[in-house]
Amino acid sequence: MQNLMANARIVLVNTSHPGNIGGAARAMKNMGVHNLVLVDPQEFPSGKADARSAGAKDILENARVVGSLEEAIEGCSLVVGTSARSRNIPWPLLDPRETAAQALAELSKHQVAFVFGREDRGLTNDELHLCNFHVHIPSNEDFSSLNLAAAVQVITYELRMALLASEKGHEPVPVWGTEWDAELATNDQMEKLFDHMQETLVEIEFLDLENPRQLMARLRRLYVRVRMDRVEHNIMRGILTATQRTLKKLR
Amino acid sequence: MQNLMANARIVLVNTSHPGNIGGAARAMKNMGVHNLVLVDPQEFPSGKADARSAGAKDILENARVVGSLEEAIEGCSLVVGTSARSRNIPWPLLDPRETAAQALAELSKHQVAFVFGREDRGLTNDELHLCNFHVHIPSNEDFSSLNLAAAVQVITYELRMALLASEKGHEPVPVWGTEWDAELATNDQMEKLFDHMQETLVEIEFLDLENPRQLMARLRRLYVRVRMDRVEHNIMRGILTATQRTLKKLR
Repeated sequence: MQNLMANARIVLVNTSHPGNIGGAARAMKNMGVHNLVLVDPQEFPSGKADARSAGAKDILENARVVGSLEEAIEGCSLVVGTSARSRNIPWPLLDPRETAAQALAELSKHQVAFVFGREDRGLTNDELHLCNFHVHIPSNEDFSSLNLAAAVQVITYELRMALLASEKGHEPVPVWGTEWDAELATNDQMEKLFDHMQETLVEIEFLDLENPRQLMARLRRLYVRVRMDRVEHNIMRGILTATQRTLKKLR
Repeated sequence: MQNLMANARIVLVNTSHPGNIGGAARAMKNMGVHNLVLVDPQEFPSGKADARSAGAKDILENARVVGSLEEAIEGCSLVVGTSARSRNIPWPLLDPRETAAQALAELSKHQVAFVFGREDRGLTNDELHLCNFHVHIPSNEDFSSLNLAAAVQVITYELRMALLASEKGHEPVPVWGTEWDAELATNDQMEKLFDHMQETLVEIEFLDLENPRQLMARLRRLYVRVRMDRVEHNIMRGILTATQRTLKKLR
């Protein structure tokens, strides 16, 4: 179990209350997850975090602090973001159990990040658009916002339950193909692809940066959701390069 | 759902930290459980409990304070107590999911209590012997003690998941396409898209029809798998048309 959990990463974005960081660390350690990444925390390190961690101080001491979500999820091939249910642009939405099944199927192959937003406002749309799936913890519609550490508890609990079930031979069924012929593209490869795509779309005069509308968001949703493998990623980069080269020859 | 949950009761025994009572109330309200009974709490009511409840103050105000576990579980036909795994006298032991399934089967008939012990020592043997079942939240053996509110979160989350599943008749929830903003593209729209794509890939000299290798098969797998909606389909067609138009202008 330990080896699989080594590929799981909990990312807390812009946390306001250090006590919640400590509570999250405790929940993680209870469930056997050890990698914590903090994106721009408002107060860290902090005695309040240490106190609430109740002995999970090793997780706090080894936590990585970074400046952006992109850095936090670098090298991850599956990124899941916690979300309130309704968004402007709908996204593939899992419940915590489905999320755990999906993650379990992938943890043996690559790094998986679980991203939790701010206490008051969650994740921004831009942050959510970096995620392959969104996970919604089912809750009372009139009182839906869980405490941050409680949300980490639910997700890591489901992860542990899925691992225990699989060790007993009850493999939960993942949502997305586990038998694939090529490794998945990493998050940073995808970001470079989106940069290249945007540049090319401007060159073919399909994208007007003065009036971009929702184009890149729509394309991002399409290509993040499909979970591109590296062969596909290389093909897409090849198509963009060929387009630019042909335009250059003619100009 | 509300009616069934009205028969569920959360009992906290001899809680030391009022913040945990507030955290438990918040977790309960998030999950739609409203009856809280406190057995001899060390500090209650308390501003700390109110603060941590983050708006679940109604649950705290309606909480019943009693002197013994016997009083707290009066009228209940099923009592489940949280327990560390090993006891001197073995007892029927469920995990949280099994507990929720058991409770769900009984909530329509009678009152069900979920009993949580002290932060430092849990429930005594005498208290555990008042319970029909014990529930153990699976956790890291070297760091097994969950925060009290986190434990309430896990149990009430499982209860809610079980209720939601039963309301849906245990139908698995599809991951994709249940809440989407646009209709899916039809098969013939997709075929026209692939024709258009192939034509354009030849024009940008990325595809050589004499030696096509697996390119169109790879692209087909990518775009069929993603289940494109009509907005996305139109964007893709628009990109192909813009590419052709720009090439034409330059030729």
